[in-house]
Amino acid sequence: MNKQILLKERPEGLPTASTWSLNNAEIPALADGEILIKNEYISLDPAMRGWLRDVRSYIPPVGINEVMRAGSLGRVVKANNHPKFKEGDVLVGTGGVQQYVVSNGKGFLKVEEGNRPLTEYLGVLGMPGMTAYFGILEVGELKDGETVVVSGAAGAVGSVVGQIAKIKGCKVIGIAGGKAKCDYLVNELGFDAAIDYKSDNIYAAIKEHCPKGIDVYFDNVGGEILDAALSRLAMHARIVICGAISQYNNTEKVSGPSNYMSLLVNRASMKGMVVFDYASRYHVAREQMEIWLNEGKLKSQEDIYEGIENFNDTLLRLFDGNKQGKLILKVSED
Amino acid sequence: MNKQILLKERPEGLPTASTWSLNNAEIPALADGEILIKNEYISLDPAMRGWLRDVRSYIPPVGINEVMRAGSLGRVVKANNHPKFKEGDVLVGTGGVQQYVVSNGKGFLKVEEGNRPLTEYLGVLGMPGMTAYFGILEVGELKDGETVVVSGAAGAVGSVVGQIAKIKGCKVIGIAGGKAKCDYLVNELGFDAAIDYKSDNIYAAIKEHCPKGIDVYFDNVGGEILDAALSRLAMHARIVICGAISQYNNTEKVSGPSNYMSLLVNRASMKGMVVFDYASRYHVAREQMEIWLNEGKLKSQEDIYEGIENFNDTLLRLFDGNKQGKLILKVSED
Repeated sequence: MNKQILLKERPEGLPTASTWSLNNAEIPALADGEILIKNEYISLDPAMRGWLRDVRSYIPPVGINEVMRAGSLGRVVKANNHPKFKEGDVLVGTGGVQQYVVSNGKGFLKVEEGNRPLTEYLGVLGMPGMTAYFGILEVGELKDGETVVVSGAAGAVGSVVGQIAKIKGCKVIGIAGGKAKCDYLVNELGFDAAIDYKSDNIYAAIKEHCPKGIDVYFDNVGGEILDAALSRLAMHARIVICGAISQYNNTEKVSGPSNYMSLLVNRASMKGMVVFDYASRYHVAREQMEIWLNEGKLKSQEDIYEGIENFNDTLLRLFDGNKQGKLILKVSED
Repeated sequence: MNKQILLKERPEGLPTASTWSLNNAEIPALADGEILIKNEYISLDPAMRGWLRDVRSYIPPVGINEVMRAGSLGRVVKANNHPKFKEGDVLVGTGGVQQYVVSNGKGFLKVEEGNRPLTEYLGVLGMPGMTAYFGILEVGELKDGETVVVSGAAGAVGSVVGQIAKIKGCKVIGIAGGKAKCDYLVNELGFDAAIDYKSDNIYAAIKEHCPKGIDVYFDNVGGEILDAALSRLAMHARIVICGAISQYNNTEKVSGPSNYMSLLVNRASMKGMVVFDYASRYHVAREQMEIWLNEGKLKSQEDIYEGIENFNDTLLRLFDGNKQGKLILKVSED
């Protein structure tokens, strides 16, 4: 049997247990050219909250009673004349919150085992890592020696953004919640400074750490922190809009950045990105990131929980910040 | 004597009579290399409201008891060994709200009489025209055939933005207040459509007129209209942030664009501009605009009031919309 998490009803505010139903599905027989993947891990990402919303976006919302969409890492356990994949292959893709996937293989990529720990292919070598790489280097047009501020800095995307900026010779300030995360950014990842949004005055702290202003602000959170960053832009600054996790569970209207006229004063830009646009070059980024990982220049941390039944509780850790690094759920049972 | 308008106190909300004082100053003797300019016209621009605010911006605020800053057009009535300008020259610059200026000539440009009506050098051939030209073509990266929406469309900047976009083969929708202005945009300036924000549902009207979404949104107003434009962006849209007149007299916090996450969904950008950055190429733009004016492809309208004593009342027309075209005040008295 295949345990699946289905979307039962669209949440208002934070998802709850009643947002989901646990379904036991039979695994259908494979048609010619199909594979059966046993999901080992699924990826928990802030973007998932957006996929629950019934609005026009960069991807259709998850439908009611459909399997919840999620990035996944699994192993091919059966292949019926598949042209590309065979039994035993490890694949990453969007397998959803379930234990097994039947697929024609579209959208799945094979991972070479042995290079790096497999779970890294959901984090630093997966979507979050790709987002960080293309977001900071291309959308952010990062230049050597610039001052970079990243929010959600201890998260899967933010931690990689900051480390890439350090590799590129920038001054990097991370914004995260709590002393443990801030210490991790500075002591383990080599950030120049960290701002604890739960206890520091963000405006004052940004001013202190960015005396010449912010050249690139990489935003994962929106809200008050985006406004604070806007208040300290350097001339020709770039803001990368990658996410707005502070706003995703709002039951009221999104809080727009009231300091946006700083874009005018500083001839600055604010640009949105969706990582899928860079799919044709993921392999380039992944190769570079593997080199940096093996050289020890890039560090990765995964926070792994177990049990598909714990999906909602684990998901909520994204929003209350109670996790360290890339959030992953092990859904296989043996 | 030189009648001058000085800033007496910084306004909260709309400027009032008590914001200003009228001063009669003596005209000092000219030092070597100086000129005396008799101001004929001054330009009234939304940016003036920003110059009253005591905050860090692209230009220092006007000081208390200083002559109010303003663009001006005047004639040299005396020159004391000036290397560049002589008696009778017509100059545009930032002469301020006063009847005479003593200057070393820095920042002033000579206008050739006879080509075009002089007041156009404060409008379509002045700062507003330059703002429109570089804003839509360079910041907006306008491409042939795109759908362009401009707010404040009947104003000095907006009307030129829309007309340049029409010259470049785009579909142009203007947003303005009231039927007279909307009729003017469509019937006189050749816009494809106009939206009356005072009576139309802006969201529905933008949807109707931009079935494929907005490629370039040129924003002079901010607030609700910016949010409506954000809700209908096409992929890779560009938003030019030129002004936010709806917010300039706020006594509360600026209302930020709550739909800004549309930038992410549509991989769009929002970029600020300040026209002074293009000063070295004003002559290129001005030459092109004179050609378009002479060919009848570009039309200009000035709304001219008289009397330096009427400065505040005339200024308020910017904010209540009670004017048609470029707002100018004649300050000379003969």
